[in-house]
Amino acid sequence: MATGQTDPRRRERILAAALDLVAEEGVAGVSHRKIAARADVPLGSMTYHFTGIDDLLGEAFTGFADHIVAVFDLHLGRAKNPEQAREAVTDLIHTLSEGPRRDLVLTQELYTLAARRPEYRKLTQAWMRRSRDLLEQHFDATTARQLDALIEGLTLHRALDEAPHDRELTRLAVARLTAAA
Amino acid sequence: MATGQTDPRRRERILAAALDLVAEEGVAGVSHRKIAARADVPLGSMTYHFTGIDDLLGEAFTGFADHIVAVFDLHLGRAKNPEQAREAVTDLIHTLSEGPRRDLVLTQELYTLAARRPEYRKLTQAWMRRSRDLLEQHFDATTARQLDALIEGLTLHRALDEAPHDRELTRLAVARLTAAA
Repeated sequence: MATGQTDPRRRERILAAALDLVAEEGVAGVSHRKIAARADVPLGSMTYHFTGIDDLLGEAFTGFADHIVAVFDLHLGRAKNPEQAREAVTDLIHTLSEGPRRDLVLTQELYTLAARRPEYRKLTQAWMRRSRDLLEQHFDATTARQLDALIEGLTLHRALDEAPHDRELTRLAVARLTAAA
Repeated sequence: MATGQTDPRRRERILAAALDLVAEEGVAGVSHRKIAARADVPLGSMTYHFTGIDDLLGEAFTGFADHIVAVFDLHLGRAKNPEQAREAVTDLIHTLSEGPRRDLVLTQELYTLAARRPEYRKLTQAWMRRSRDLLEQHFDATTARQLDALIEGLTLHRALDEAPHDRELTRLAVARLTAAA
């Protein structure tokens, strides 16, 4: 059994526990004590791995953003031409909006933090930059930025809507934004 | 001095205090006790006006949505033709994304609640319906829905971005989505 402060999985367990707690109770519900209990690590090990709760949350949300960026990359990376890229964007919106409720909650929790505090805007800024970079594999920079916003809005609205719009509406919106590009 | 449980402004003060607290501390930070203190009303009057914290928050966020819908209406209501309507949508995105940080925070807090709990999705659903109705004064239903999502995404991204995109990018996105409509 791995023990002590050098157990690399301990750090991972702490980060996973932090995201679980944020998803369930919100950012306001997290504390060193609760996270340590959830991760099944000694309370003292928290300060060994992280300088404070913002350091911990920043790293946890960075890991979460990595996960969503990987979903972007999975869809966009395999497109071989503009037509496939448009279809990939459509797929992405429907995959994200029909994905785990946990991802939607964590995204909104992060945006709420970023709306309040500039240090978290660095994190959302880096996330937007990476999403746009992936879109720029297929579209010019202006179109990529417009598409990134469309993906955000359509994903959120579909996820919250009692009667989510169909795939044709998404496909048409993507086609319209990218027609001239 | 107005007194007692029939003071209509007492109800308004409670709702305003609830939104102030949510904006400052988050939904998790609100309680009957804190709201009553902030509104300067007796704790006992809270249960006279509201059946519980969800009733209170529901009404407070409905008032907040009314405010944002009024901003939509202010911009879209005076447009006389499609060209003016497109310019109004562009104005709207820049007005909302450069508006009070409080509005951004409250919007994200509401979406976070809606992501977690179906009863709050009724509220965001009604809000989306009203936004789309206003857009449908100028655009067909499909385009209105696409535009509503674009407004959401561009407003959020501009508000969080260290180098917010310029008006020309917004204008072009709106023109592209509405070109065929």
